[in-house]
Amino acid sequence: MAEDFSKKMAKKGKFITFEGGEGSGKSTHIERLVTHLRQEGYHVLIAREPGGTEVGEQIRNILQYSKQSAAMVPETELLLFCASRAQLVRQVIQPALNDGTIVICDRFLDSTTVYQGVGRKVDPQAVAAINHFAVGAYRPDLTLVIDLDPRIGLERVRGRELFDRMENQALEFYDRVRQGYLDLAKRENRRVKVIDGGQTIERIAEQIWSLVKGVL
Amino acid sequence: MAEDFSKKMAKKGKFITFEGGEGSGKSTHIERLVTHLRQEGYHVLIAREPGGTEVGEQIRNILQYSKQSAAMVPETELLLFCASRAQLVRQVIQPALNDGTIVICDRFLDSTTVYQGVGRKVDPQAVAAINHFAVGAYRPDLTLVIDLDPRIGLERVRGRELFDRMENQALEFYDRVRQGYLDLAKRENRRVKVIDGGQTIERIAEQIWSLVKGVL
Repeated sequence: MAEDFSKKMAKKGKFITFEGGEGSGKSTHIERLVTHLRQEGYHVLIAREPGGTEVGEQIRNILQYSKQSAAMVPETELLLFCASRAQLVRQVIQPALNDGTIVICDRFLDSTTVYQGVGRKVDPQAVAAINHFAVGAYRPDLTLVIDLDPRIGLERVRGRELFDRMENQALEFYDRVRQGYLDLAKRENRRVKVIDGGQTIERIAEQIWSLVKGVL
Repeated sequence: MAEDFSKKMAKKGKFITFEGGEGSGKSTHIERLVTHLRQEGYHVLIAREPGGTEVGEQIRNILQYSKQSAAMVPETELLLFCASRAQLVRQVIQPALNDGTIVICDRFLDSTTVYQGVGRKVDPQAVAAINHFAVGAYRPDLTLVIDLDPRIGLERVRGRELFDRMENQALEFYDRVRQGYLDLAKRENRRVKVIDGGQTIERIAEQIWSLVKGVL
């Protein structure tokens, strides 16, 4: 069923995803890119994961809520992310691409590959199989990974004090995630592009625009 | 990861699941069985799917809510059922079985195999892979399928008037589900037992008790 679905995905529009660790600057650069694309006259849709549909936002609430309770097992977490994604891709992304829209998504299947597969060490074959079930063989036209040392990103997001209290175990997780993205970019170097998140916002935005222009 | 997990499942307690179509009488017979087991001095825990944990009940709400909106795609439905199950088996079922408790579950992984795989025609291999990810190789000690013509079961649940308005397409779905359970019982005839749901409640309860005694 997943196979049939992914073959139906029209390539009339373009599908661009942003990936990267916490505090890497994804939101800032998504906003800039969308503004730029609209100025150039493109029709753009922004989606986020998990969420982006009524069902997906309900799933997002469960995932956010469980961050506090910490009772959720990694398998349930992974299945919930993929449940949200399966709905988003069929209900929102596919119809928009068929319409010729540029769809920009804040995280997509690579987040599951990297966070659950590499970060939480869930069996990578199982992760790949479930990702495939959720979205088929379909992949974004371009995936932009904003790469940044998690020590810098996490301090940006959490502030100095909270960051200082983080255990080494948590930092090791984010180091694995960072490495997971870099390895992914090596494996799928035509689709996945790494941008140095330590540069100025202007410089990063220029590099993003140049890569995006390449797929339009 | 799923493999490791299922090997850890202790068999000190017993795990019994009930399956069957709508209106087949599962709830009635679960109640009777639990009463009987407790009278005999057994420690019994009842769980339901989807649900049975805080996360699972939140997932159940999404699934129930989407019944009215009908916007949920089958892939999302399947992943949500399995997300709830992965949590239930680790947080509730496994600890109870380790304690020597008899766990009785109203639906378990066979519902996904039959409803999503056979009923909604989702690729059976994908269903098996995701079920395996959610619960590993672990299976119930005994699965009781209460078999009943869906025309009788659905009329019981929905009433004559609603039943008469059901489209043939919906009935075909329930016929496939019924056949799916019968085929499953042939494939896994040591674990899965079919009980004729057209008999009197007393007769059915006797047969259930006799099968349950066989695994205690």
